[in-house]
Amino acid sequence: MVMSTVNIFLPSRVAGTNIYLLRFVKGNGEQVTVKVAINGYGTIGKRVADAVSLQDDMEIVGVTKTRPTFEARLAVSKGFDLYVAIPENIPSFEEAGITVKGTLEDLLGICDVVVDCTPGKEGVNNLERYRKFGVKAIFQGGEKHENIGMSFNSLSNYHENLGIDYTRVVSCNTTGLARTIYPLVKEFGVKKVYATMVRRGPDPNNSKKGPVNAIVPVLKVPSHHGPDLKTVIHDLDIDTMAVAVPTTLMHLHCNVVELGREATSEEVIKVWEKTPRVTFVDGGEGIVSTAQIMEMAKDLKRDRSDLNEITVWKDGVHVVGNTLYYYQAIHQESDVVPENVDCIRAMFRLTEDNLGSIEKTNRALGIN
Amino acid sequence: MVMSTVNIFLPSRVAGTNIYLLRFVKGNGEQVTVKVAINGYGTIGKRVADAVSLQDDMEIVGVTKTRPTFEARLAVSKGFDLYVAIPENIPSFEEAGITVKGTLEDLLGICDVVVDCTPGKEGVNNLERYRKFGVKAIFQGGEKHENIGMSFNSLSNYHENLGIDYTRVVSCNTTGLARTIYPLVKEFGVKKVYATMVRRGPDPNNSKKGPVNAIVPVLKVPSHHGPDLKTVIHDLDIDTMAVAVPTTLMHLHCNVVELGREATSEEVIKVWEKTPRVTFVDGGEGIVSTAQIMEMAKDLKRDRSDLNEITVWKDGVHVVGNTLYYYQAIHQESDVVPENVDCIRAMFRLTEDNLGSIEKTNRALGIN
Amino acid sequence: MVMSTVNIFLPSRVAGTNIYLLRFVKGNGEQVTVKVAINGYGTIGKRVADAVSLQDDMEIVGVTKTRPTFEARLAVSKGFDLYVAIPENIPSFEEAGITVKGTLEDLLGICDVVVDCTPGKEGVNNLERYRKFGVKAIFQGGEKHENIGMSFNSLSNYHENLGIDYTRVVSCNTTGLARTIYPLVKEFGVKKVYATMVRRGPDPNNSKKGPVNAIVPVLKVPSHHGPDLKTVIHDLDIDTMAVAVPTTLMHLHCNVVELGREATSEEVIKVWEKTPRVTFVDGGEGIVSTAQIMEMAKDLKRDRSDLNEITVWKDGVHVVGNTLYYYQAIHQESDVVPENVDCIRAMFRLTEDNLGSIEKTNRALGIN
Amino acid sequence: MVMSTVNIFLPSRVAGTNIYLLRFVKGNGEQVTVKVAINGYGTIGKRVADAVSLQDDMEIVGVTKTRPTFEARLAVSKGFDLYVAIPENIPSFEEAGITVKGTLEDLLGICDVVVDCTPGKEGVNNLERYRKFGVKAIFQGGEKHENIGMSFNSLSNYHENLGIDYTRVVSCNTTGLARTIYPLVKEFGVKKVYATMVRRGPDPNNSKKGPVNAIVPVLKVPSHHGPDLKTVIHDLDIDTMAVAVPTTLMHLHCNVVELGREATSEEVIKVWEKTPRVTFVDGGEGIVSTAQIMEMAKDLKRDRSDLNEITVWKDGVHVVGNTLYYYQAIHQESDVVPENVDCIRAMFRLTEDNLGSIEKTNRALGIN
Repeated sequence: MVMSTVNIFLPSRVAGTNIYLLRFVKGNGEQVTVKVAINGYGTIGKRVADAVSLQDDMEIVGVTKTRPTFEARLAVSKGFDLYVAIPENIPSFEEAGITVKGTLEDLLGICDVVVDCTPGKEGVNNLERYRKFGVKAIFQGGEKHENIGMSFNSLSNYHENLGIDYTRVVSCNTTGLARTIYPLVKEFGVKKVYATMVRRGPDPNNSKKGPVNAIVPVLKVPSHHGPDLKTVIHDLDIDTMAVAVPTTLMHLHCNVVELGREATSEEVIKVWEKTPRVTFVDGGEGIVSTAQIMEMAKDLKRDRSDLNEITVWKDGVHVVGNTLYYYQAIHQESDVVPENVDCIRAMFRLTEDNLGSIEKTNRALGIN
Repeated sequence: MVMSTVNIFLPSRVAGTNIYLLRFVKGNGEQVTVKVAINGYGTIGKRVADAVSLQDDMEIVGVTKTRPTFEARLAVSKGFDLYVAIPENIPSFEEAGITVKGTLEDLLGICDVVVDCTPGKEGVNNLERYRKFGVKAIFQGGEKHENIGMSFNSLSNYHENLGIDYTRVVSCNTTGLARTIYPLVKEFGVKKVYATMVRRGPDPNNSKKGPVNAIVPVLKVPSHHGPDLKTVIHDLDIDTMAVAVPTTLMHLHCNVVELGREATSEEVIKVWEKTPRVTFVDGGEGIVSTAQIMEMAKDLKRDRSDLNEITVWKDGVHVVGNTLYYYQAIHQESDVVPENVDCIRAMFRLTEDNLGSIEKTNRALGIN
Repeated sequence: MVMSTVNIFLPSRVAGTNIYLLRFVKGNGEQVTVKVAINGYGTIGKRVADAVSLQDDMEIVGVTKTRPTFEARLAVSKGFDLYVAIPENIPSFEEAGITVKGTLEDLLGICDVVVDCTPGKEGVNNLERYRKFGVKAIFQGGEKHENIGMSFNSLSNYHENLGIDYTRVVSCNTTGLARTIYPLVKEFGVKKVYATMVRRGPDPNNSKKGPVNAIVPVLKVPSHHGPDLKTVIHDLDIDTMAVAVPTTLMHLHCNVVELGREATSEEVIKVWEKTPRVTFVDGGEGIVSTAQIMEMAKDLKRDRSDLNEITVWKDGVHVVGNTLYYYQAIHQESDVVPENVDCIRAMFRLTEDNLGSIEKTNRALGIN
Repeated sequence: MVMSTVNIFLPSRVAGTNIYLLRFVKGNGEQVTVKVAINGYGTIGKRVADAVSLQDDMEIVGVTKTRPTFEARLAVSKGFDLYVAIPENIPSFEEAGITVKGTLEDLLGICDVVVDCTPGKEGVNNLERYRKFGVKAIFQGGEKHENIGMSFNSLSNYHENLGIDYTRVVSCNTTGLARTIYPLVKEFGVKKVYATMVRRGPDPNNSKKGPVNAIVPVLKVPSHHGPDLKTVIHDLDIDTMAVAVPTTLMHLHCNVVELGREATSEEVIKVWEKTPRVTFVDGGEGIVSTAQIMEMAKDLKRDRSDLNEITVWKDGVHVVGNTLYYYQAIHQESDVVPENVDCIRAMFRLTEDNLGSIEKTNRALGIN
């Protein structure tokens, strides 16, 4: 049997060059999995690590941590090879009895792509290092589009990321907006979006950030979310305002969309019912707050009680003329996780069909 | 000397009738103050009582309480005559050593107007009783417009309330919207308002209501705030969405206004600078949240550290074309207090000039 | 083979009598599982239902719900037979498309024991009904010991509950105290316990209760927790104070124990390391708050991200002379879940060995 | 008339020396006020500035700020001379239109004592500078006793601070403990105190610190509060535990005191009724949380709605044998304010009678 199509390339290991080599389908047709490194095994990193591990076309070859925290211990206990991002800290891992495999640079030497989950705005500083090692890299929404040059959303611009070396999965909020607005663009046309983001203050596991008893407006209008969405849905007319509030569970968006034509709530709901990674709750059945959505998510028995879908209140969808009003809730630490998996597929052209990738990822993660 | 102008009328004491009698200016030109009762000496009631006491054309003749709480004790210590709204509870006041002057009905027999500050939606049940005693009555924003028949805002529809017997001062949120939107209507014209209200959960002194860690959307869109604003600014096109969040200090509005013409931020700010009961803060000077607004209010040394004005973030005002975006904060328990004072003036035609009443009230309360 | 010992009895179905029948081991030695009903499929009820389902000596025969909420839908989707506790509400279930099997009374007719998970203080009202149907019943910690006559903790008084008909699993807080204090009583003797309970306000899924921004002391001292602990560790000298605070995740106890003899922190830790359902975290590894404990629990991948164990901060254990100070965190909605399972075993004498039951339950639930 | 006693000295202006000069009573008996500088016009500093201004034996000669915030503007609007602690920042004040009088060093040249209200742990770094300028200095509770060499509480160790050059007013929590425990030591003797401090997370005006939804234990036991109290009540046997919780209003202490003899709740309450700066609230009158205490404080109409007294729940005081249990609430930003005033009097021997100073300060501030 002879391999006839050759469409999957990887950065070579020849440092500093960008010569791609055929790698992912051997001559005998046997597939080789993409070797994924996670730089920053924290809130997002550990979730992406688990999600990648559940796929059959990619695998985790190592994760990094800077200090010997309980998450470092967790990584080892789950069987991941642990690398230390700050070499000087290796002795502190040893003192804590946590086995270390090497440094970040060691890890970069053996992976095909690194998913950079370091804290927001730090990722860009790693770009040169990744380039030097000739590995592809995915950044998260904390980085600026301008610094990376490309952005990714599974639904709206998967195709733009085919074969690309460096990209960023847009933030949890932008991902949430893309999921519900992109199908509206396709079905009804969208003239204008006014979105108000009511953001949780800190991550649930963060006990240091506030606000404790205040509402904090983002005084720069439009907030960064609007322009950010345009990196994955070009030519959209959207302005966003945002406030931070004292809650740790989810963000909530209050969205106003001027549609291209008159429509009904039922039509809009029907469109979203067909949209992957969008789900509904019903205030009439007792789910009246983000707290109850999170409780419902626990009942779903996903890993870490995550809710990867964007959640829309069905009885909060209202259309007046051609103006649509709706509320959606965003589980910050998990909605982008399947996007990272799809993004890897796009970057390595594992498939050119974004809906196929979405479905494959969803099935592996138990979504839907 | 002969009284020549007779323009001030009061409900007679003849129960069940509405024959008005000349009362407020005696033959010798000496003015008689309006006798005000407060039914419900709680969060709003005690503030209105103090505000009325500071005016020279009205006076408090008594306040009511249902149970012998610390607020009942406070009323007496401030020299207010205390009446008991639930007669059966009088003995419990006596046991607590709190002097009682009589019942609510006793109080209704000696006042010209009652400001009903009973809990939301309970006020309407008192309407018949007030009517029976021939006293005018002001209700608060918790009551429905339909049940009272008239609504009040000092700036936008004072004139509609001249001489009227029953009205309601619109809610804290509606008052806040009226204060900043009415001058926009006058200056620029307003085509459409989309307002998102981010509401504090409970009052600051309430430790029983939530949410503690959740965002709670108001699924009915438009929320009641939009229609409510139309009771004092007719013909306005406004839709509102709302969420409740875990904070006790202030509400915050994220407003989008499509103006009748193009404008600049500076023009809008200039309009509000001339608007009474609207004030500015500046994020650049460190006031970046509702918590800091409340701290600033403490420095102003108003009674109870209240902030009766609507507070707009100056550096949060942005105009793009003819679309205005701005954030405003509402001190729920105090913004309607001066409105109640003005409302009494309108009901008794103490003056027909709303700006005059506003200025008189402000001066007495130390506003501006 | 012939069954020789007959030590397992069940209440007969003869209403109003207490004649026990041999039921659980057939003549051929084959075991019959205990038929368990859950009255109140809410926060605790749904967890107990899942926990019972994972055992091999008991099974769920049905659960009840009063209204057609998302939890009713959940019960059906998990394959539980759903009964309606308020028969008049059956039509509303039908309208919502939720299949109902019958009424609470129908369910009582087919179960051996009912786990009453109705809201606190309501359970006792059901006692007569259970008695009428001749079924055993377990109540939760919201009920008073005096009303039920017996209390249960797996570690400290399992033996008192052998064969008993009605008992209550003590509250989450009392269970937490029992788990760490009982082994201290056994190993060191305990002269006096002063415990201060810092209680979360509402359940995580509750968005209505507060406090939002306050600390609420329990003015009755000792609070009910101290006396309550004595129902399962008799003759203990304990006084407790308590405050409610604005958090939804876990309770936290600050405990002072005057031991019967001098000891070291290491000795105390060693005792708890051998104690079932007690686990440790380490502030030095970054787990410095209840939020991080809950994040760690998510990583453990238990159902609903629960943490059934009492969590003690290892670096918060300090002994000075014979006085022990320590902090422990309580996952309110899950620590009592395995206790309910053990309690069923005690009531039906499925085993007389409490440690055996604890280990069997733990294994099924993935604890340790 | 001839001055006969010469007991009041001031540091001379001769830099680097400690020669004290007679200053505060002229030969003609006329009193000269102490010149007070506030270094750090923030939460505490602005309150101390106002409190000093209300006394007749001391005056504010200037306050400092590092950046041109709204508090800098406030200082000027209140008529205080404003000095800039970071000279390089003077231009930014000028740009903001805020008039500056000079630098911190300019201010140190004209004052007798500086009240250091810089952020916790930074104050000690200023000590040398104050010494160089020959001015006395008061630090706040964020500094360590060891670094300053002396601590102050108006009630318990005023006399130790007579004529001293450098001291610290102990923290809000330690001040609160001293106020209620010192009279117990005097009246009943105290064998042992176990105190659990439930601390608000951030200051009310802080929107950046957490926790938002967590309880954070202080793992070091005893926490610093116990040893700290011994700096002003020597030989006391006290151990403290502490947790931080998501509230901004007040701290709350749950205290257990083993008295030297049996007593009754009434006896204890009677002692505190005679103690200055201790006040009572009653849960039975509806004040069941710190939120309601703060609401009550607003009704008292003190500056900034502060509550300088320690508040004890009268119906939360319980004595069993010789063990006393009680709850007290601490208004963090204001309880130490009058202590700073008294401390100045002690340092300059304006009076040797601490109760006299306390009463004089209280009267000026409207306490009691």
